Amino acid sequence: MKKLFILMLAAVTFAACNKPNEKMNKCENEEMSRCENALLVRIAEIEVNEGYLEQYLAAAHNVGTKSVETEPGVICIFPMQVKEQPNTIRIVEIYRDQEAYQSHLQTSHFLEYKQGTLHMVKSLKLVDTNPLAPESMLLIFKKF
Amino acid sequence: MKKLFILMLAAVTFAACNKPNEKMNKCENEEMSRCENALLVRIAEIEVNEGYLEQYLAAAHNVGTKSVETEPGVICIFPMQVKEQPNTIRIVEIYRDQEAYQSHLQTSHFLEYKQGTLHMVKSLKLVDTNPLAPESMLLIFKKF
Repeated sequence: MKKLFILMLAAVTFAACNKPNEKMNKCENEEMSRCENALLVRIAEIEVNEGYLEQYLAAAHNVGTKSVETEPGVICIFPMQVKEQPNTIRIVEIYRDQEAYQSHLQTSHFLEYKQGTLHMVKSLKLVDTNPLAPESMLLIFKKF
Repeated sequence: MKKLFILMLAAVTFAACNKPNEKMNKCENEEMSRCENALLVRIAEIEVNEGYLEQYLAAAHNVGTKSVETEPGVICIFPMQVKEQPNTIRIVEIYRDQEAYQSHLQTSHFLEYKQGTLHMVKSLKLVDTNPLAPESMLLIFKKF
């Protein structure tokens, strides 16, 4: 059971990153403020209802992988589980721009996830951040 | 002034990543639980006192870049600024293991940063997370 849970945790957090597109690469030479305005970097804070953690992780895994696989504008989805509150998940999400994010909200896989997990999610807080220094992301993407 | 502030934001967030070392690469073939135990992934939540933001960002930039440049065990430092609370900074930190983190706390650049910013920091919360699916980090590191 413990192993299954660990595997579920591993599965849901199979984050991936899409290749930075032209707009993102341009950030290396553009004024920082323009890149900050283009890129959307957010931390989603999710509290899962007792008894639904494994189901939620499975649904999140499904939508996360489908999003990065099929949507060029979904650059990165990186989930973490808060140690002291196992039912609290934080996901760092990076979208190419507001347009890519709005498009993501209309996809069938996102709508299916949203509807299918409404009863599992106790609370959801979306913390928008300034996507500071996009070139630092390119460093992460390119360094290896 | 606005441009200076933007440049400061850009500077402080010049995050970098060290090359995943052997221990991290092993995660691809090791049992997930072992990797979860080894890797240390944390979100630091920092509230900066009014009037000290630029000074704090400069100090954070200095310690951040020195840490990833000189400490192989400091894998990644990625700061973000909360849009609705500009004085709130969140930093995703990834260390190779507990030993690397403890070593980081003893470095001169960290101690200098810690002492030099005590009066600038209104509050500090360290949120330890389960470093879910280390192979997802390798994806981020290797994909490009």
